[in-house]
Formats: sequence, C-alpha cells, structure tokens
Amino acid sequence: MATLSSTHCRSYSPLPSSSCASSSSSSCSKLGHRQRVSVSSVPKRCLAAKVYCVQSQTSSAGRMQDGAMATTATPIENETPFKKLKDGLLSVPSSVEYNEAVAFDINDKEPAVSITVVGASGDLAKKKIFPALFALYYEDCLPKHFTVYGYARSKMTDAELRNMVSKTLTCRIDKRENCSEKMEQFLKRCFYHSGQYDSQENFAELDKKLKEREGGRVSNRLFYLSIPPNIFIDSVRCASLSASSGNGWTRVIVEKPFGRDSESSAALTKALKQYLEEDQIFRIDHYLGKELVENLSVLRFSNLIFEPLWSRQYIRNVQLIFSEDFGTEGRGGYFDNYGIIRDIMQNHLLQILALFAMETPVSLAGEDIRNEKVKVLRSMRPLQLENVVVGQYKSHIKGGVTYPAYTDDKTVPKDSLTPTFAAAALFIDNARWDGVPFLMKAGKALQTKRAEIRVQFRHVPGNLYNRNFGTDLDQATNELVIRVQPDEAIYLKINNKVPGLGMRLDRSNLNLHYAARYSKEIPDAYERLLLDAIEGERRLFIRSDELDAAWALFTPLLKELEEKKIIPEYYPHGSRGPVGAHYLAARYNVRWGDFGADQ
Amino acid sequence: MATLSSTHCRSYSPLPSSSCASSSSSSCSKLGHRQRVSVSSVPKRCLAAKVYCVQSQTSSAGRMQDGAMATTATPIENETPFKKLKDGLLSVPSSVEYNEAVAFDINDKEPAVSITVVGASGDLAKKKIFPALFALYYEDCLPKHFTVYGYARSKMTDAELRNMVSKTLTCRIDKRENCSEKMEQFLKRCFYHSGQYDSQENFAELDKKLKEREGGRVSNRLFYLSIPPNIFIDSVRCASLSASSGNGWTRVIVEKPFGRDSESSAALTKALKQYLEEDQIFRIDHYLGKELVENLSVLRFSNLIFEPLWSRQYIRNVQLIFSEDFGTEGRGGYFDNYGIIRDIMQNHLLQILALFAMETPVSLAGEDIRNEKVKVLRSMRPLQLENVVVGQYKSHIKGGVTYPAYTDDKTVPKDSLTPTFAAAALFIDNARWDGVPFLMKAGKALQTKRAEIRVQFRHVPGNLYNRNFGTDLDQATNELVIRVQPDEAIYLKINNKVPGLGMRLDRSNLNLHYAARYSKEIPDAYERLLLDAIEGERRLFIRSDELDAAWALFTPLLKELEEKKIIPEYYPHGSRGPVGAHYLAARYNVRWGDFGADQ
Repeated sequence: MATLSSTHCRSYSPLPSSSCASSSSSSCSKLGHRQRVSVSSVPKRCLAAKVYCVQSQTSSAGRMQDGAMATTATPIENETPFKKLKDGLLSVPSSVEYNEAVAFDINDKEPAVSITVVGASGDLAKKKIFPALFALYYEDCLPKHFTVYGYARSKMTDAELRNMVSKTLTCRIDKRENCSEKMEQFLKRCFYHSGQYDSQENFAELDKKLKEREGGRVSNRLFYLSIPPNIFIDSVRCASLSASSGNGWTRVIVEKPFGRDSESSAALTKALKQYLEEDQIFRIDHYLGKELVENLSVLRFSNLIFEPLWSRQYIRNVQLIFSEDFGTEGRGGYFDNYGIIRDIMQNHLLQILALFAMETPVSLAGEDIRNEKVKVLRSMRPLQLENVVVGQYKSHIKGGVTYPAYTDDKTVPKDSLTPTFAAAALFIDNARWDGVPFLMKAGKALQTKRAEIRVQFRHVPGNLYNRNFGTDLDQATNELVIRVQPDEAIYLKINNKVPGLGMRLDRSNLNLHYAARYSKEIPDAYERLLLDAIEGERRLFIRSDELDAAWALFTPLLKELEEKKIIPEYYPHGSRGPVGAHYLAARYNVRWGDFGADQ
Repeated sequence: MATLSSTHCRSYSPLPSSSCASSSSSSCSKLGHRQRVSVSSVPKRCLAAKVYCVQSQTSSAGRMQDGAMATTATPIENETPFKKLKDGLLSVPSSVEYNEAVAFDINDKEPAVSITVVGASGDLAKKKIFPALFALYYEDCLPKHFTVYGYARSKMTDAELRNMVSKTLTCRIDKRENCSEKMEQFLKRCFYHSGQYDSQENFAELDKKLKEREGGRVSNRLFYLSIPPNIFIDSVRCASLSASSGNGWTRVIVEKPFGRDSESSAALTKALKQYLEEDQIFRIDHYLGKELVENLSVLRFSNLIFEPLWSRQYIRNVQLIFSEDFGTEGRGGYFDNYGIIRDIMQNHLLQILALFAMETPVSLAGEDIRNEKVKVLRSMRPLQLENVVVGQYKSHIKGGVTYPAYTDDKTVPKDSLTPTFAAAALFIDNARWDGVPFLMKAGKALQTKRAEIRVQFRHVPGNLYNRNFGTDLDQATNELVIRVQPDEAIYLKINNKVPGLGMRLDRSNLNLHYAARYSKEIPDAYERLLLDAIEGERRLFIRSDELDAAWALFTPLLKELEEKKIIPEYYPHGSRGPVGAHYLAARYNVRWGDFGADQ
C-alpha cells in the first residue's frame, strides 16, 4: 500500500492558502470579519496544524459567535469547588478529579470544547451521536479538554445518562484493546442537564455548568440539535441568548428537515439567522459523510484518467440510486408529511449530484466547494411533473408472510398519496452537462438496500468490435459504479477479450472492493461530520444559498403533486418498484444500471 | 458474466466487409488477384462462416499458391490402396481405416488440410508445435480432414514419431475427459517422412504421400519451418517446387530470426519471395499470440474510457518490459550471434509497441492492422546509441550457489560483448505520440520473469490534492498495467481515499486478474497462431514491409554497437539489471514502473 499521507484522523496540512493562510488572502477578506487563528485544542495527529478562518470578537453581543480567541486568554473561575459525589463509575467527578482526568497543567492553555446534545434522550442521539463521539474519543480525535452534555426535558442524573449512553457505545471491530477502559474515561466526560427547549433560564443553568467544566479556558461550544423542527428556533434562541461562548466559537448542528418547501425553508433560515451567523450553522446531511461520497472528489480530482471523461462528451447518463428494503413500519407519521422526494432526493441525492457534477473548485476549502455546488444547482432546470414518477408500496404476500402496505401503517392516513418511491430525470444546463440525463431513484420497501452512483459512458465511436456485441449496445458500454452502501466499492466495467482462441468479448469489472482492500472499519458518517463541525470544516454541510437553490428545483413539482393529488403508482412491498421508472428512463434513452445481470 | 459473443474457437462473424465481403471492395481489389471464397474446411464452430480473400489460380506455376479453389473440385486419387500395418495404437491406418476415422462420405467435399512440420525432431516441434496442434484438435478447432506430417532428416517410422509426439501432449487442466481417447485419434492423423531439407526429390516423395492422405480432396497445405535459418531457403525452394498444393492454398510459417540486420533480412525476404507470394509467408512472432497482447486491441478499441486517454495529451510514457530469470545455460551459441536486442526488442517488444501505438485501423482485418503497424514503425526515429543501455550478466554467488556469468556458458566466446540486457528509449514522431518516450527493457538472468506493458499517465493538471502526495509526484499518477506473463492481469492504478476520518490518499488497483476471473486455461500462443495460419488470418504475422521498417530502426544502432565494440554494463546474475537503465529513464523523466513497492 502506497500511502500518500499519514496521520490517522486528519491531515489537511495546511488547508489551501486561499481559505485563510494569509490574513489578506481572498476568502478571508471576502468574509470580512475574520482573523487567522491556529486552533490548538484538537490533538495534532488529528489536525496537523490546521488553520481556520474564524470570526473576530466584534459581532453583536446578542448572537452566538463562531470565533475563537487566540489561546492567550486568561483562565477564569479555575478553582470553583464542586460537590464531590462518590457513586462508582458513573459518578460525577469533582473538579479536582475532573482536572486530573484531563491531566491539568497550569501552562496548558488549550481551549475547552463543550458538545451539547440537545434532545439527548432521542433515538438519533442514542444510536448515532453519542456512539460517534465515543468513536472519535477512542481514535484520539477529540480535543484534549472536551465535555459532552446531554440536554433534554426528562429528569435524569448524570449517572442515568451515562448508563443510557453506555448501552450503545461500541468499539471498532478491529480495535478492541482497552475498550472498556476507554469507555469509562469517555463516560466520565459525559454530563446531563434537564431543561425545556424554550427556556432561556434552563439554558442559562446549562451555561453555568459549562463554564464550570471549561475551568476558565477559552470556551468553544457545539450544540447538536437533535429535536423536532417545531422547536428548532426556540432552542436556537435560548441557546444563543443564554449559552453562547463568551470568548470562543459557538456552532449549531441542525438536522433535516430544513423546511418542506422554498417558503418554509426560507422562513427557517431567516429565523436561524436572527441568532446565528451563516458560518455558525451546520446543516447536516449524513449522506455527505459517507466514505464513498468523500472519495468521489478524490477519485475525480486526483486521477488524470477521469479528467477527460467527466463531461457530456463521454458520459451518457448518471444515475443516483437509493433503495431501502423496509417500509415505515409504524413510524410513518413524520414521513407522511414529507415523502420520499423531500426525505431523500431533495437533500441526499441532490447533494451527491452536485458534488459529482460541480466544476473543479479553486481549492478543497469548504467555501470553494460550496460555491461550486451552488453553481450546479442554479444551472439546473426545476423538475417537471412529466420527468417524475411517484410510487407507493402496497401490501404483498410472499412465502405466507404478509408485508404491509404503506397505508397499513397506523401512523399514516388511510388515503395518503405520499410517495414512498420516486424517480426523476434532472438536467444541468451548463457547458459540461448539457443534454446529459441525471436520473434519480429513491424508494422504500424495495427488493434491495443500496445507495450508489452509476456513470454510464457513451458508445465507442466507430467501434471495430461492434459486430460482436449483437444488437444490445447498452450491454457493452463502460460504466463506473460507486457503491456507497451497503458494501463500499468502486468498479469500472470494461470490455475485454475472453481468454481463448476465439474473439469473444466480455464485460468485466476493474474492481476495488473496500472490504477486501481495507481491513479497517469504515467510520460512521456522523463521526466524520461531528469532527468536521468541531474543526470548523464546512465542506460537507449545506449552506443557506445551497438549500434555497435545492428547494427552488423541487418546490414547484412538490406543489403540483399535492395540488393535483397525483396518484402514485402502486408497487408490491419488496418488489423492484414501479415500472414507470423504466418508461421514464427509456424516454431519455437510459437503462437503469441496477437491474443488469452483472450489476 | 455477460458474454457478448459465443462460439468457443472463433467468432469473427463475418469479418468486416472492407476485408473482402464484396469482390469490388477496396482491400481485395487493391491486392489485385483475389476472389471471395468461403473456406468450409474448418468446422463451423471454430470459424463461423469466415470469409477470406484468397489468391486465384492465375499465379505462375513454379510458385506455391496461397489460394483455395471453390469446394466443387473433383476428388482425384481417392481410392489409392495403402499398405496395411497393424502394430497397435501407433500404427499407420490403411486408407480405409483412415477414411473411416474421418467419417468418409462421398458427398463430403470439404478440403483436406495437411500440416507439415519441417524439423519435426527439434525442440520447438516437440515442445510447442505438436502440443498446440493436439490442443486445437482437442478443442475441435482443426478442419475435419487434417493430417499432420513430421519431416526431418532422421530415420523414423510413423510409430516412432507418434511415440515421440505422444510424450509431450497434454490435455487442458480443466478438461480431462476423453483425453487419452482424443490423443489416440490425434496420433492416428500424425505421420512421418524422412528427408533432406534441400532435396526436391525427398519433398516430391512427401507430396505423393500428402496426395494419398488428401484422398482427392481440395488440398490445402501448411508448412511449419522449425529449422535453422541457414536451411530456410533450401527448404522453401524444395517444398515449393515439389510439394505445393495443386488446387488449394499453400502457406509457410517461418520462425525468427528473420535475418540479423536490414541487409540480411532483405536478402532472406527476397529469397523467400522467389518461391512464395507475400500472403503465403507467415512470419511468426509468438508474443503476438499471447492472450493479453490480443486483448490490447480489444481494451483500446472497445472501451470508450480509454479513447481520449490514448495520446501524448494524457500518456506520459509507455514501458515495455521483458525479463527472464535464467541465463543461456549452455545454449548460448545461437543467442551469442544475435543478442537480446535482436532476440527480444526488435521483434517482440517492437511489435507490441506498434500494436499499442497504431491509429485505429479501418477494420480488424489483418491487412488493415498491418498497414497501421507499418505506419507506426515508419514514424519512429532509428535508435540512437545515446538512448540505449546494454548489459551482460556476470557470475554471482548467492546462498552458497554460484550463478554463472554469460561468458561462463561454454557455447559462448570468452570475450563476447553480446548484450544479454538492453534498455532503450524510442520515439514516434507523429501527431499522437510526439514527445512521449516509449521505453523498452529486456534482459536475461534477472531477478524476475515477466512481460508487461505499463502506461504511465500524466499528472493531474492543477491537482487539488497535490499537497497530500508530498514531493514524490511519480507515486501518484495513474498507471495502466497489462501483464502478459507470468500471471495474466490488467490493472489500473488509481488514487483513492483511505477509509477513515482523515484525508489520506492511497494508490489502489482497479484489478482484473485473469486467473481469478477466468477459470479456463489460457491457450498457448502457438495454438492461436497455428489456427490463424490455417484460417489465413494474417493479423498477428509480420509482413515483409513491417519487417523492413523494424530493421531500419535497429540496424544502425546494432552496427554501431558492434563496430565500436561497446562494452556492456555488467550486472550480477539474478539481479535487477544494470543501473544504467535508470539513468536512461531519468533522462526522459521516466521512472521504471516495475520497481515500485506496489508494482
């Protein structure tokens, strides 16, 4: 294995100069109120001297600030005594113990980072956020002085939170050493605060606790809002007004849904911006944290062989395919209000499309990439009803088992027309992609579970071997497949000669199967995204203008579907989905790649 | 596996029309004296209605003719009785038995094909030619009415020949059924005729025997000259004058060396052409029969993804590497007169280079491909001494074992300067390849045994990830490797992201390993080439003008090396070869790809 770089957590070293290596350089000065600060709170092996653009301390007082002081700030309230509890592993350590735990050193001026999980008792927090934080800790990727706070309405002690969290922590399959020891250490850094989501007072209590934990260090605070959309704004308001960092950065991770159309999304953004600067908002799309999605840009921009191919001249169509092999299963209440187009297409698939199709960015810095993604979205035609097929799964009996229809879900209205499947043809009207169909397909309760990008290349002009391919020319074109899940893989279908005396052609795969090549466990998307948020890396988070552009593409269609009460095409639970998807593809001379004999 | 065509021996069906599907089409009418004939003597499943351009019967009487009559010729001498010998398996069957063996049918008008191996007791005949003929028979690829004749000076009975031949026959590893039965049947078709290579009388006796075996059918005759070059011409003269087919085609396979410089090669060709037409001469280069060399054109011309890449714009250099892990081992007598440049470079490697670099031919027909190969050779600069490194292996002691020097070989003069290793930089001065170094390297007694083509691509322009590659940019470029032997494989080195939280790049292979993909045994090069000669497929044989062009490139250099008595760079037996090869590569900013950690 020829590894081209070495540190295990992160190794952008340093970030491209345009992002802010010099204070007079473009992207810093464009953003206006930034200064260059080296964030030394993250261990060197994770960050390798990463340099950020951060806000200076000149913004208005009532707002959270995504800025970090230089690390010369004087420690305050360093010695506040804590009530000492001694109830075993899950006890709250005293400040003395706590400081011992982080190897307190009077000369250690690294900032503290407090991560508050708002909605700590929810499913996402338990299943994804806490485990991801632990994994980062296990890999030594969290800053030295980190604290994790759970915040929710339920009454719970720190011990109870730890008990709850401990149930979902796991160690990497390939790295089990010291695992329980590491878990203990991690849990000692976890605390709980009970409060209402709309209570400034409760957040002020949290703020007091955070300050105590920060022990007078520069304070950086990350809030992860793992709560329903209707209480987003209240929480942001309270956290901002009562629990912002006084001398470091404050950032907020927001989960989808980001509205349900252009108007509601714009309203949400407007409300968020009352309390947050753009660069404090981290809209998470966990699909962008997937390994193969990250690799997409690497493949494309670090391999010359793909450079000439990446355009309408060589690419015939691009397919973005997402399928789940289960339905809503009693949890369709939220889904029914959104449907598959909002739930998967408008965000996950569209984001991948934008990453795939964007022009080469000036650098790998977050803003440069997001600028290019916005350009792609703004070059696209809003979806037309005629270019969309919607479906909904119906019940199906197989092997004596009855698989329920979508409307059999008790949380779903009996007459719901919400699509659980959709296929769409999209077009990018720019010089690179004019005329190339980008086909999306997403569905629940289908035969397989998968997420992949398929790039089908054009036919060979003047193909000498044409005769050998018979009439089914589609079989013989090259195809690049990037399988995001379940088994990460990259493969390139090529034609080659079957060994033997004759001249038989055969389509084989030039194959890179991740599991075979890399024995290391692939980190969960949430790990990457949480680390990015802590590091201020915004590349994989969705900017407000991106979100606006994305909604602009889908909103007219979504309204038309609802106004016209378009009846979805029903497909059996566990089937391949509505046949309408094939007719849609056929209209653009495309054949879905996920149905071939040799997918 | 998506197989795009189906018959197992051959399936060009039919050949592209330009080769001669219509009698007025270009390539037929250009060659002047051809007519369209369907050769039905080869079983359909091997040939699938293949159509040839063949000579008409108008050429002069004293020459062999590579023509085939339409299959309506009247059978003659059909009933000549044979002496009946009954001595078991290896006996000569009577004509009755013989005709029974081929399921004689009065309405069966398929031509007979007689294959005469001239030099039947030699090593090549025993190790390669007879086994290849048997393999073709085993695979049902030989024409129905075939006969194999051994011809050599030694006295031998048919039974003795069969006994000799039977020792080297093997069945496909994956297909052992009926093997000994098939061997018996094959051996029954093998006969021997003892004669001098320069005796017209002896060849006339052979002719008589062949006629008897042909049983009045249309007679097609293939002579494989597996004899030293000094008796080539005599044999060709005798065979031509005394044993040419009267009513079918006559073809001659000639083995290298084809001279040792432009002059001697031209003289040889001139002499051959006294007795043979150009299209009767099949100059064999067994490297061109290798599976991966055949696949080279398929890869290139049936995959769009390679189309834009195949030029100076994307390819930085091409490397053609051949190495053997043994020396001359007491058989250096022939080699010493030729040296590695003549033995490997001027033919095998140059042929592969021409196939690799040629423009797209009009069709896959032999003449179209050979036309393009000649154009490449004629666009090349003759080799300059400064672009060549020569070496010779010296003795080396490893693990107590002494490996001999080249000049320790008793058949080699003590003061021999003959190169056993050479590296050279070649250039094609045409629009596609201007400035791209084609590096060749060939050697004996090296560390490894291999033959491969390596295509190194240029750097990514404006590479965003450059920083991650450190200073060794060579490590990070794409490379396409076509490994011809020992383990056939195709792989494409790409950069991708190492799974994990950081951004580490890694060079992985998109891999097609033949052994893993295709369980079928890969046929020996001689099988393919013999079948091609029988079928009149000239694509993989070297035409006279090609040979002239190839010699024109190497002759000045070879003369200069000899005249200036250039001392080779000595390298230890079993080593990686002379370091001079690296300096040569460095001059053209190339790094040999076969020395990397991740070859």
